[in-house]
Order: sequence, then C-alpha cells, then structure tokens
Amino acid sequence: MTEPQAIPKSYGVLLYPYFEVLDIAGPIEALNTLHRLPGYEDMTFSYIAQTKEPVIPGPDRADSFTGRQLYLPTHTFADAPQLDVLLVPGGMGTFDKGNAGAVDYVRRAYHGSEGGVRGLHSLITVCTGAGMAAQAGVLDGRRATTNKAAWSAVTPFGRKTFWVAKARWVRSGNVWTTSGVSAGTDGMIAWMASVYPWEVVDQVVAGMEYNRVTDPDNDPFASIHACEDVPPKE
Amino acid sequence: MTEPQAIPKSYGVLLYPYFEVLDIAGPIEALNTLHRLPGYEDMTFSYIAQTKEPVIPGPDRADSFTGRQLYLPTHTFADAPQLDVLLVPGGMGTFDKGNAGAVDYVRRAYHGSEGGVRGLHSLITVCTGAGMAAQAGVLDGRRATTNKAAWSAVTPFGRKTFWVAKARWVRSGNVWTTSGVSAGTDGMIAWMASVYPWEVVDQVVAGMEYNRVTDPDNDPFASIHACEDVPPKE
Repeated sequence: MTEPQAIPKSYGVLLYPYFEVLDIAGPIEALNTLHRLPGYEDMTFSYIAQTKEPVIPGPDRADSFTGRQLYLPTHTFADAPQLDVLLVPGGMGTFDKGNAGAVDYVRRAYHGSEGGVRGLHSLITVCTGAGMAAQAGVLDGRRATTNKAAWSAVTPFGRKTFWVAKARWVRSGNVWTTSGVSAGTDGMIAWMASVYPWEVVDQVVAGMEYNRVTDPDNDPFASIHACEDVPPKE
Repeated sequence: MTEPQAIPKSYGVLLYPYFEVLDIAGPIEALNTLHRLPGYEDMTFSYIAQTKEPVIPGPDRADSFTGRQLYLPTHTFADAPQLDVLLVPGGMGTFDKGNAGAVDYVRRAYHGSEGGVRGLHSLITVCTGAGMAAQAGVLDGRRATTNKAAWSAVTPFGRKTFWVAKARWVRSGNVWTTSGVSAGTDGMIAWMASVYPWEVVDQVVAGMEYNRVTDPDNDPFASIHACEDVPPKE
C-alpha cells in the first residue's frame, strides 16, 4: 500500500442495479465541467459494476422514467483500474441482498491491497450509498450522514458510526458522505473545493449554473423527515 | 385542435445526440418523485427521438463521463404519443445542423395539428434547449431565457424573442424557458407549483432533498457571464 497521491485524476463511479440517477448525474456534471477546463483534460472516468452488462437505474425495472436509461460499465469489480476517487450512489438498489460484490469492491478500493494497489484519495457516497460504505466497514468510527427519508433504513448498516442527522454532507477524514439525492452535487463541489483552487471550483459552479449549498450544516430536510442523530452502538 | 387538458399526465422528453444529461436528470427526478406519490401513479413518460436507436448524451462521443450512458427512445418524432408536457434539454448537440427533425417535432408537438392532435399544455426548455424552441418559432413574441455561458450563441436563434438575461427561468404563457443546466430543476419545480398543490410540490422537494430557487429573478450567473437583455430584432 502506498500513500494516496496529492491531485486526484482517476475517478470512478460504482454502478449497481436500481441506483438513483441524480445521485451521480449532478456530481458527474461537476466533474465533467471541471474536465472541460484547460489543464484538467487528463482526468479519467470509469464506470465499475459487477459485470459489463448494461446497468439500469431505479427505482425499478418497470419505471417509465429511468427504465430507458442504460449505463455501460467500463470495468468490473474484478478488473477495476486504480482509482483516486470513488463515487458511490444510493437508490432503491442499496437495499438489495445481491450487493455483496459491490460492498466488497468498495472495501477493497478504499483500503487498497497488499499487491500494490493504492487506497483511495477520497471516497464520496451520495444518499443511501452511505449504507454500502457502512456495510464495507469504511464508516466504522467515523461521522457520516445519508438520505433523510431513508434514515431509519440506512443507519442500522453502520453500528460503529455516528450518524449526523442535520447535515448536507459530512467529511470524516477522506470519506465524504452526503444527504439524499440532490445533496450529492453540493458534497462533490465541497470536496472539489478541498482539492482544487477556489477559482477553478467557481468556474465549475458558474459553468453548470449551480445554486450551491456552501454550509454543510444547512439541511432543512432532517427536521422535515424527523431525523435524529444516531450515536454508535459499539 | 382542442384545448389543453387541465391536469397534465403525459410527459415526454426530446432526445437528440449530445444533449446535456443534467438538463433532464434533475427535472426527471422531480417528475419521478411526483410519480411515486399516492394518486400520481398514472403519469406516463416518453423518450422521443429521430429514431429508436440509443441516444448518447454530450458533450461528445469520446467523452468518458457521458459516453457510456445510453438513452433508449420509446418513440420517434413520427410516432410520438399525444403529450401534455414536453421537456427540451440543451447541450452541445443544440448547435448541430442535423436537428431539423427535432425542431420540426417541437413545433408540431407545441401547436398540435389539424388531425386532432392537441397542442401541449406546457413546453419546458432547459439550457440551450431554448435555441431549439426558438428555431421552431415557439418563442416568437415571447420573453425567454437560456444558458448564460452560451448566451451569444443561442439568442440569435430567436430574433422575435425578448431574451431576459437575469432570470433563473422565464414563464411566458405556457412556455417555460430556464437558464443553464442546473436551472432546469428549479424551472421544472416552479412549473409543478403552477399546476399541482403546494403540499405535493413540497413533498417532491423534500423527497429529492433539493435546495430550490423559488425566485425566478435570482440569477447570479447573468452577471458572471456578462449577459445583457436582447430585445427582439423584428
């Protein structure tokens, strides 16, 4: 295992059946807008899934809104490239029993391996994607947040995690967890601002005309969904 | 031609090569969140394109971020169903010469036809999608807005349009045009609020945890991109 590199260039997104499109669409737009700026052309982006079969987003196969959208993986969990940053979306698929391979991949990608595969520079989860990271053990001993409407369904996945209810996103070391759906874009841009010059981040925000939340504690949805902090059980 | 119906149920999105994913991802998330609420299950959603071949979003074919995303049309311009609401995204593809079929479809869908096809209840354009509506003549005599970074490229498409620079979105009768990329979600939710009860819209916003812009004049990006109003030339 070697140290994470300073400037992330290799980005990937985890795909699994019935993920939520907007969980990745906003963050990908931000990354892609960055990628179009002079000097940032050499970023790479990978879609990583169990197999190379097309992945259909959620909420379910019959959904007329998302059922006609296909994401084609560039890599499988077995042949995924060395990543600096992994984006983990949420969605109804988070609760499927068949996600063991994805959870195992998150664990391996995060920590790296003895064989010389470097651990991640940063892990970013969106929405119920925090449940995948929790199952991978990556949130043990950390503070984290997740989707507020799915609060009571996701937080039990992380018994060693301090779940922060009122948070747009939470940074805990190199693990960033965001609240539901739209919050992923704010979390991704906040992460960018921790890595790239602010002028560059401003250009990204202006390019996508995004009305950014800059305060991680600005979260009206915790109270709307009556969420409370969940301290670690272990 | 008959009068538009009061409660829209048949939604469609125009697809063409190299549209911008987030232009439709945010609005579709809002519609899909509505669709999941009790009483709103009978909404339909169609993807309409020149042919039924998969459509790849932009900025271009080689883009590693969007090049692995495919949208499968449910209908072509020739066999599109009766729609109440048509969503027109922007993106680099807006400027392609090969969009005559799409522009013609926008015109036909908006106005309806003598053969008994009803006109749209509402047309919603996002980002440079306003350029498609302008070419279709739908923005003649109306106020409209568009992407601020592409201001000088899009506004010439509408010589009979008053282009409003400082606007998150503009409503002009039943035509809604929004500013760039992220603004589409605010425009779609504002449109929803003009049609559906506010309690329902609040549920949608809370479900997607969206930090909504409620003031159509709240647009910091016009000055960032140095845009000025463009009055009609004719």
